[in-house]
Amino acid sequence: MRKIEHIGIAVKDLKASNDLFRRLLGKDSYKEEEVAGEGVLTSFFQVGDTKVELLEASRPESPIAKYLEKRSEGVHHIAFDVEDIHAEVLRLKAAGFEILNETPKSGADNKLVVFLHPKSTNGVLVELCQERN
Amino acid sequence: MRKIEHIGIAVKDLKASNDLFRRLLGKDSYKEEEVAGEGVLTSFFQVGDTKVELLEASRPESPIAKYLEKRSEGVHHIAFDVEDIHAEVLRLKAAGFEILNETPKSGADNKLVVFLHPKSTNGVLVELCQERN
Repeated sequence: MRKIEHIGIAVKDLKASNDLFRRLLGKDSYKEEEVAGEGVLTSFFQVGDTKVELLEASRPESPIAKYLEKRSEGVHHIAFDVEDIHAEVLRLKAAGFEILNETPKSGADNKLVVFLHPKSTNGVLVELCQERN
Repeated sequence: MRKIEHIGIAVKDLKASNDLFRRLLGKDSYKEEEVAGEGVLTSFFQVGDTKVELLEASRPESPIAKYLEKRSEGVHHIAFDVEDIHAEVLRLKAAGFEILNETPKSGADNKLVVFLHPKSTNGVLVELCQERN
């Protein structure tokens, strides 16, 4: 775990939240990107060495839509940058963490991503991410 | 907002969560500290340029105890490092954010801290923090 790559925040209305975070952080979102496989529209803000990623559902059955139904807007996940995602999956599995997808999948921002179940991580949905070559 | 200074995570049992995050992050907590005014015991892990701060209630009526009763373990707040906390309070107030304490108070880790109400920040409890001189 080299650094916190980003903090993912679930929002209902990406346009309104882009404006809110622009006012909060004093800067604009530097990109928006759809991740079709996850059913999300994302928007990124750079803050120092880390990013804030806003997540809006792009279809009613996406994980973010379900999250917003069950809970409400707020922090959805914390993503850690890793050097070797396959090695980290093996290390964390051996250490007793529950891995949601052992085979890394495509995330936003040209990343391979793996999620850990929040019940094994103090209620925090943890994402591991590695930049694709 | 210069960087994400730390991510605060509410936990029920600091000792157990210290062990969990040691296994997750592959490193030890580098310090524990009580913040008597807030009724919390804290524990810090360095991750790149940012920190993970675990928060356990040290008395039953503390904000963290109430948070755990109402919700459950998980991300409690996100703290942004600011250069001039008084100027940031004025800027954010003018931008329409609800400030919970306009007069900065003492936080963990030698910081002055101010919180914004999560209803004005997409459900995220935002902390501003400035290193004390």
